[in-house]
Amino acid sequence: MDTQKPYVIGVDLGGTNTVFGIVDARGDIVAQDSIKTQAYQTADAFVEAGVECLKPLIAQVGGLDKIAGMGIGAPNANYYSGAIEFAPNLSWAHNGVVPLAQMFSDKLSTVNCQLSTPLKVRITNDANAAAMGEMAYGAARGMKNFIVITLGTGVGSGIVVNGQLLYGHDGFAGELGHVTMVRGKEGRLCGCGRTGCLEAYCSATGVARTAREILANTDRPSLLRDKPAEEIESLDVSIAAGKGDEVANEIFQFTGKMLGEACADFAAFSSPEAFIFFGGLCKAGDLIMKPIEDSYDKAVMPIFRGKAKFLVSSLMNANAAVLGASALGWE
Amino acid sequence: MDTQKPYVIGVDLGGTNTVFGIVDARGDIVAQDSIKTQAYQTADAFVEAGVECLKPLIAQVGGLDKIAGMGIGAPNANYYSGAIEFAPNLSWAHNGVVPLAQMFSDKLSTVNCQLSTPLKVRITNDANAAAMGEMAYGAARGMKNFIVITLGTGVGSGIVVNGQLLYGHDGFAGELGHVTMVRGKEGRLCGCGRTGCLEAYCSATGVARTAREILANTDRPSLLRDKPAEEIESLDVSIAAGKGDEVANEIFQFTGKMLGEACADFAAFSSPEAFIFFGGLCKAGDLIMKPIEDSYDKAVMPIFRGKAKFLVSSLMNANAAVLGASALGWE
Repeated sequence: MDTQKPYVIGVDLGGTNTVFGIVDARGDIVAQDSIKTQAYQTADAFVEAGVECLKPLIAQVGGLDKIAGMGIGAPNANYYSGAIEFAPNLSWAHNGVVPLAQMFSDKLSTVNCQLSTPLKVRITNDANAAAMGEMAYGAARGMKNFIVITLGTGVGSGIVVNGQLLYGHDGFAGELGHVTMVRGKEGRLCGCGRTGCLEAYCSATGVARTAREILANTDRPSLLRDKPAEEIESLDVSIAAGKGDEVANEIFQFTGKMLGEACADFAAFSSPEAFIFFGGLCKAGDLIMKPIEDSYDKAVMPIFRGKAKFLVSSLMNANAAVLGASALGWE
Repeated sequence: MDTQKPYVIGVDLGGTNTVFGIVDARGDIVAQDSIKTQAYQTADAFVEAGVECLKPLIAQVGGLDKIAGMGIGAPNANYYSGAIEFAPNLSWAHNGVVPLAQMFSDKLSTVNCQLSTPLKVRITNDANAAAMGEMAYGAARGMKNFIVITLGTGVGSGIVVNGQLLYGHDGFAGELGHVTMVRGKEGRLCGCGRTGCLEAYCSATGVARTAREILANTDRPSLLRDKPAEEIESLDVSIAAGKGDEVANEIFQFTGKMLGEACADFAAFSSPEAFIFFGGLCKAGDLIMKPIEDSYDKAVMPIFRGKAKFLVSSLMNANAAVLGASALGWE
């Protein structure tokens, strides 16, 4: 690390808020502020507002020449091109390619004329940023081969191989939520338009759907029946499972079995030291992690059995996404 | 490349023969000889015989100081440890760990006392060696992200990411023949002891089994009925398909569909520039490659569609394994 530049900027660009943080080498966020992502008509206006938001934070740590780099985690972001590409949920980027990394770098260079070279700005998608965060500050410190699986509205992944994020030929590698787990006509429809994807079963929405299916197809008693079926969320399943609800536990068994079988295939691919799970579903702890591990042990090739660790992210707080993105700034 | 050391040694260690070749930077084998792999009681005796076999080849190119390194492709070989580990088909290695790379390096250092540093010897499994060979001399020249899939007695793979072979945490990554394609009880028993693996369907033995199943379960006419069912090999299927036999073509459709669906999952993992197929089955050309590509295009995520190339190895001759192993010598 350049001791003259002890900070990086991390940006968590979400559908609602964009959070800017100044982060030190220990992973402490020393200054932070945010803007509304969609309050701007154009990408230019968004970047301008972002830099205005950053200015006082940067001043607080002694100016832009104390900053080693900047990392942005954003939906549909491509590390290679530095752009957000056709992001359906971003008003100023749903219809084209926005070279956000370059735009921030250019705009920031107007902040501080003393800067001899423009600030390096890198961008990647949310799950890859999570993987960088785990490697820099979290559960994957010291690891060179691991896979982060994010269990949120969707199922995302960040794959690290030889200490590097796996971007593939086009920058879009690591879409493990979209490996096919159920082939043929029985596969559930996935948000990507295909059927049978891991995400269709093991995302928060997938878990809620499993719950609704079991409740509709049986008359078994369950705490989950206290709510109208269409309002059930994965959090309700976690809460019910925690209270010993049999149906809720069966939902976690089903979800964990599929995740474990998927991880067994991933082991055959990259034989990671650890699988690190991130997202709301993990808050259920052993209720979900134990079924994953049991299923993995049964499904995996004997040569890999008992080798991989199954961990829950150690960055599961509100700032995880900022930290993850900031890790790109050290590159 | 060190112009003082214009050659590498490539070793194809197979169940029957071990072939030693001296290879130049263009991928020409300038000298070659072989020994019987299993004619020795111990690994020490095997290494001693190997070095005796190599001596005149090395002398032919001007001595060991013209050699940049040595690469060995062998079953159950681990790149990290430099050892062959519990290889069921090698009499002198089926029962333990043989540090073959170090043993060859040590033994070779007695050949030429002028050598200032011991020769670097690296070892890897056959499919990884094939991938190295494609990158150094074959269809993957200039590529940094690709997957070689070997369709032989088994299904093997060598995965290259960022220009590096993917070895994973333990050295055993890249076992794509053992991802699960058919889950549950209907899955075919695989040689690895599990069920439903890609290898159980798409290896040469898998293809022959598909043929026998179709012939047994239907009374459709086929050229394949000219032979006793238990003697049918994948080559017979290729020949019959080439003659327009409907059943044989259906077997290739079935095999190609599964390979294409598997590759669609692999794309979600590492988004390679190309899938390169190697082995006897590829000699059927478009009869197998077209079904693979068609199935891939249907199954893959839209974001990856139309991006990856589907290629047949350009090293499909008797020396491919020696060339592949030799590529390790340049590292």
